[in-house]
Amino acid sequence: MQQPIQIKVINGNTFDAMTQGINESAQSVRFPHTTIATTQPKAGPESIESYYDEYLAIPGILEEIILSGDEFDAFVIACWGDPGIEAARELTTKPVIGIAEASMYVANMVAARWGVVTTQHRTLDMIEKTIHKAGFAHRCVSIRTSGIAVVETETARAATVDSLEAIGRSAMVEDKAEALCLGCAGMSGLDHELEQRLGIPVIDAVAAAVKMAEALVSLRKQTSKALTYKYPDAKRIKGFPEYMQPRSEE
Amino acid sequence: MQQPIQIKVINGNTFDAMTQGINESAQSVRFPHTTIATTQPKAGPESIESYYDEYLAIPGILEEIILSGDEFDAFVIACWGDPGIEAARELTTKPVIGIAEASMYVANMVAARWGVVTTQHRTLDMIEKTIHKAGFAHRCVSIRTSGIAVVETETARAATVDSLEAIGRSAMVEDKAEALCLGCAGMSGLDHELEQRLGIPVIDAVAAAVKMAEALVSLRKQTSKALTYKYPDAKRIKGFPEYMQPRSEE
Amino acid sequence: MQQPIQIKVINGNTFDAMTQGINESAQSVRFPHTTIATTQPKAGPESIESYYDEYLAIPGILEEIILSGDEFDAFVIACWGDPGIEAARELTTKPVIGIAEASMYVANMVAARWGVVTTQHRTLDMIEKTIHKAGFAHRCVSIRTSGIAVVETETARAATVDSLEAIGRSAMVEDKAEALCLGCAGMSGLDHELEQRLGIPVIDAVAAAVKMAEALVSLRKQTSKALTYKYPDAKRIKGFPEYMQPRSEE
Amino acid sequence: MQQPIQIKVINGNTFDAMTQGINESAQSVRFPHTTIATTQPKAGPESIESYYDEYLAIPGILEEIILSGDEFDAFVIACWGDPGIEAARELTTKPVIGIAEASMYVANMVAARWGVVTTQHRTLDMIEKTIHKAGFAHRCVSIRTSGIAVVETETARAATVDSLEAIGRSAMVEDKAEALCLGCAGMSGLDHELEQRLGIPVIDAVAAAVKMAEALVSLRKQTSKALTYKYPDAKRIKGFPEYMQPRSEE
Amino acid sequence: MQQPIQIKVINGNTFDAMTQGINESAQSVRFPHTTIATTQPKAGPESIESYYDEYLAIPGILEEIILSGDEFDAFVIACWGDPGIEAARELTTKPVIGIAEASMYVANMVAARWGVVTTQHRTLDMIEKTIHKAGFAHRCVSIRTSGIAVVETETARAATVDSLEAIGRSAMVEDKAEALCLGCAGMSGLDHELEQRLGIPVIDAVAAAVKMAEALVSLRKQTSKALTYKYPDAKRIKGFPEYMQPRSEE
Amino acid sequence: MQQPIQIKVINGNTFDAMTQGINESAQSVRFPHTTIATTQPKAGPESIESYYDEYLAIPGILEEIILSGDEFDAFVIACWGDPGIEAARELTTKPVIGIAEASMYVANMVAARWGVVTTQHRTLDMIEKTIHKAGFAHRCVSIRTSGIAVVETETARAATVDSLEAIGRSAMVEDKAEALCLGCAGMSGLDHELEQRLGIPVIDAVAAAVKMAEALVSLRKQTSKALTYKYPDAKRIKGFPEYMQPRSEE
Repeated sequence: MQQPIQIKVINGNTFDAMTQGINESAQSVRFPHTTIATTQPKAGPESIESYYDEYLAIPGILEEIILSGDEFDAFVIACWGDPGIEAARELTTKPVIGIAEASMYVANMVAARWGVVTTQHRTLDMIEKTIHKAGFAHRCVSIRTSGIAVVETETARAATVDSLEAIGRSAMVEDKAEALCLGCAGMSGLDHELEQRLGIPVIDAVAAAVKMAEALVSLRKQTSKALTYKYPDAKRIKGFPEYMQPRSEE
Repeated sequence: MQQPIQIKVINGNTFDAMTQGINESAQSVRFPHTTIATTQPKAGPESIESYYDEYLAIPGILEEIILSGDEFDAFVIACWGDPGIEAARELTTKPVIGIAEASMYVANMVAARWGVVTTQHRTLDMIEKTIHKAGFAHRCVSIRTSGIAVVETETARAATVDSLEAIGRSAMVEDKAEALCLGCAGMSGLDHELEQRLGIPVIDAVAAAVKMAEALVSLRKQTSKALTYKYPDAKRIKGFPEYMQPRSEE
Repeated sequence: MQQPIQIKVINGNTFDAMTQGINESAQSVRFPHTTIATTQPKAGPESIESYYDEYLAIPGILEEIILSGDEFDAFVIACWGDPGIEAARELTTKPVIGIAEASMYVANMVAARWGVVTTQHRTLDMIEKTIHKAGFAHRCVSIRTSGIAVVETETARAATVDSLEAIGRSAMVEDKAEALCLGCAGMSGLDHELEQRLGIPVIDAVAAAVKMAEALVSLRKQTSKALTYKYPDAKRIKGFPEYMQPRSEE
Repeated sequence: MQQPIQIKVINGNTFDAMTQGINESAQSVRFPHTTIATTQPKAGPESIESYYDEYLAIPGILEEIILSGDEFDAFVIACWGDPGIEAARELTTKPVIGIAEASMYVANMVAARWGVVTTQHRTLDMIEKTIHKAGFAHRCVSIRTSGIAVVETETARAATVDSLEAIGRSAMVEDKAEALCLGCAGMSGLDHELEQRLGIPVIDAVAAAVKMAEALVSLRKQTSKALTYKYPDAKRIKGFPEYMQPRSEE
Repeated sequence: MQQPIQIKVINGNTFDAMTQGINESAQSVRFPHTTIATTQPKAGPESIESYYDEYLAIPGILEEIILSGDEFDAFVIACWGDPGIEAARELTTKPVIGIAEASMYVANMVAARWGVVTTQHRTLDMIEKTIHKAGFAHRCVSIRTSGIAVVETETARAATVDSLEAIGRSAMVEDKAEALCLGCAGMSGLDHELEQRLGIPVIDAVAAAVKMAEALVSLRKQTSKALTYKYPDAKRIKGFPEYMQPRSEE
Repeated sequence: MQQPIQIKVINGNTFDAMTQGINESAQSVRFPHTTIATTQPKAGPESIESYYDEYLAIPGILEEIILSGDEFDAFVIACWGDPGIEAARELTTKPVIGIAEASMYVANMVAARWGVVTTQHRTLDMIEKTIHKAGFAHRCVSIRTSGIAVVETETARAATVDSLEAIGRSAMVEDKAEALCLGCAGMSGLDHELEQRLGIPVIDAVAAAVKMAEALVSLRKQTSKALTYKYPDAKRIKGFPEYMQPRSEE
């Protein structure tokens, strides 16, 4: 009999509508034995579109992991860019999956050359660094930004799809991308519609990460505590609540 | 209700004992709604330890995919090195997963720096090329070969574990590897024992690939037919049976 | 006549003794027409030795920039790893310099092959990522960790020097490093002593960054607001004070 | 007195007309003391335009080497992509040259920046991987596909030249390529005509490989049997004839 | 009290007008306590626009360092490409700064993605190699050549600015460059005018190098004599004057 | 009938004994229809062991090409490091081959992983840069320096062989090198003796380059004059004789 799997999906921002959208996506792909709780940080920006937004979001994301205790078997950080992921891995032995990495792994498994379509033009450098850090500069042949704001991915759904179709087609025709990663958690749930329009695989990054989380739990793999991801050493962290203070190795 | 998932796992070699070992590993991690059929090529080497072995194995591996028709939802190529994977992807719209890539993705998700432990010394270059091609030269900090033959991973199980423990420990101590990929399908099933001995995550590559296959099917992602992985163009292939002749785009 | 130059040096952690040490180093190398104010975040860890520490430090570092108004001509982030530097650049048109990048530039200008010596063993991956991101994987031939804690760089000064001498010598002899970067702001001020002991250039990263800041101000170069480092777009950031809320493009 | 040199050139496919074309090219550049025998596999595809084609071609290519005994001093694999080359090197102490690598070496020696022009659009990824694996991503500035089928390079010679001229000119003008590799053995013999039309060096890959083969024989360099290219270890390879079974180290 | 700093700036070519232009730029950014002497080689080309020019310029550049004795605290080689810089570092313990590296460091500190604008089209490869060698292929997103000759940067100043504005704008719009390096010492002094026209940071490479030189002197960092940059070993160099003969380690 | 081939081999230094040694090596591998003239620059160092030596050697090397007129069909620059090769290519339409690149191409064709053994310890960085620039960082697994001086390769022949055997064996055992490049023209002629002692291919770089030169001439490939290697533009080069002044495009 399959053990139940409890996954906590953490939206990187504090925008309720996006948390709901992410939750719907996550629920729609989970296996029956999986339970998913989608949350959002108590503090942080309503959308992540700059490095500033990203860094102010991270403490709240980490807090969500700390507050979870032993309740969950795995965590998903639902923001393309995987903010704070290394720190999250330090805080728990449970697997922590970023939606960017998960979506790129899926893209690699279905296409030789793929692209990323995303929101604001200014995120180009953030997207590139994420791909470069992952090691996929040779697989990603296109990064296209639409100029739409992250919040519009929820509030202007139809325009978002049209815009993604347009830049996705450019990625296909001009850069010969053979699959696309949706480079923002707000685009979750648009993959099937875009696949229909474009005729190539389109990866919902949240969905991809949920499946990776199920996979790792099922494999009983845990975060290595050998060196890099050891628990943070005990020390005083000013201005943060008691439960966020690292204590001696757990 | 969860759709049943049918996965075909193809051992890369023709060694029955290894096919059985692979099958046990695969069965042991599948979700309840997943059915796994493990097979081996009709033709090909009893173990893959050289480029020659690998290239003679590939037509048989591809034949296993061709013969499957629409019966399966995904395929796993169970040989670290992912022999013939691009060709396999051309032959089907179903996801095809290599155990090498799957194990490296899992390693990335649980450790910052990982190593590969494997069999014959001569495979060093094959292993390196596999990692380099995947883009993980910056994540893989150690490749250690034991000198044991692939068949011995089945016939000399205890010695294999001891030997992997020894080289795994060197990878940890000297190269600061924080997780290990078992770089041969014959080592399938040894991960938990080695984890206990070494105290770091050890990835069973077959198991990892089965979970990736379940993930992709569940996500309803299919191999892109946009360019690289289009069906092979119709042409005459001398010396191969009729069913292996490519025909006009399906 | 030389315009006065006002530089704010921001210690990445909240350890008073280190802020003082950093200040001494910075003051000791400034040009006469330069004024330096060294501060530390109001909130954050007393030392940065993990990704967790780093990410909890960043909002406080950014706050130091926001609170500065137009008082300063340049900022230095005084933690090897340059935490939050891209976000800091979004917040101001004034140059923002990280001590890691500054020290690596200096190392490049005096040595063909150099190394980094630093504190806790667990920071190896953080150091490597910093070097890789900067593009200097081909110049950095050695990363050596001593195992000493960051706070000990202030509280156990003599032991720190001895320990750095020991690992520095290994970097020279075994890895053929021809210069060393001191990979922690706490080591500021130890460069001349270590140079004497080791006979190769040893770079005080804080000092290096102060000089880079003077250089950029003198060149009247400002942070590009063309795309990546534009001011953060106006939005609500929950749980952060009013003055940390991004407003419409300034 | 110059020792005679015997080279076996192995067309990668089973298309007679191409074998003849390759032979003409090879004969036209050989030194007087060189004898060339051009053959084609008994089994395999009539053209190589997909990974599937390539992998089904390899066993036949390897068979050509095995059947040669000690008759030849060197082997050329005449398919851009160098299919099976590592395995071929395991099978003999004689040098084995791929036409892709040979043509890229020649291009490097006459131009700072070069391109590859080739056939079907779908081969883009194969070409890129070949260049990447060789280490020449920084030298190759253009890959242009014409859409013509491999067989047409023989059957529609004039159209092929026109098409290569067109994409070659784009490579020159748009990508600033200063030399071109003909990325298909079927294009052998077109180099001088294209040089006349385009005014830059155009490399016939078959011709390039023949010269490399002569060079290595003359230098008395043989394939290293130290590790990677050792003879395949003795084992049973099902479904392959007796003479293709590896036996104990020769 | 600030020690005076003596910097020798060596124009790479023998064009008087450019030496003057370089001197003006250098003087305009030096700190009050800095003295700058700008010179040019006795022998060498009037402009550097080819590898031939560059290699014939280098002995003269090196002679300028040798002839300086202990008079100077640092040297700047004022030709984008940093000709002979490693040799220059062998000849002295004083810091030697190349204007290319200095300008790229400055660009990195003010922009995430930057470009280089320069003179003759044929220098494209030289520029690329300079960037690649420095490790900044991931930061430099655009190289644009104007076709103007190096001497014209002095003799046709207005046309040069217009031309740089045009290609700079292309770099911004088409390649999303957020800052520009002026890739020729002859363009020294045009940075502020171009900044005004283009609205992004434009780096005067000579100015950047002067500031780096001041920084290194102030830090009391000297060229490492550990291995690569040791004084040249004593030997006979035919055809060069006595003072250019290397003698026993100084 | 085979056209005669005239090759000029240019020793990079001015040491007569080495020019003779190079000539013997070159003559010993040439084809019967090839004529080889080995020369040395009129000016320059007696050995190249530092960047300073290298840059003072280059004008003399280039002069040897200029003075040759149309007499030769190809040129070889016989110094591992290929000093001035890009400039040499600008000066002629005839192929110019560097012995470093030639030896690495040969190594690639006989071994998966190879090393370079060479002279003075200080040349490590020069060797690394040569390999890196060529694109072979992934193929070269070992660089070993012996500490012997370049002149000793001629004057202390037996000691040189013993020393190369020793470091070559370390490269094999510790770094798993499967072939070796002799990284100095002075080692020319030692390849067969070392092969016998070590049992792996050892590449005489001069010999390799002669064969590449014959190959390119036979292929009738010439240096591309499209962009990078165009003739140097006409201009005044002070202090150099009239025949070294570039004139209008030839």
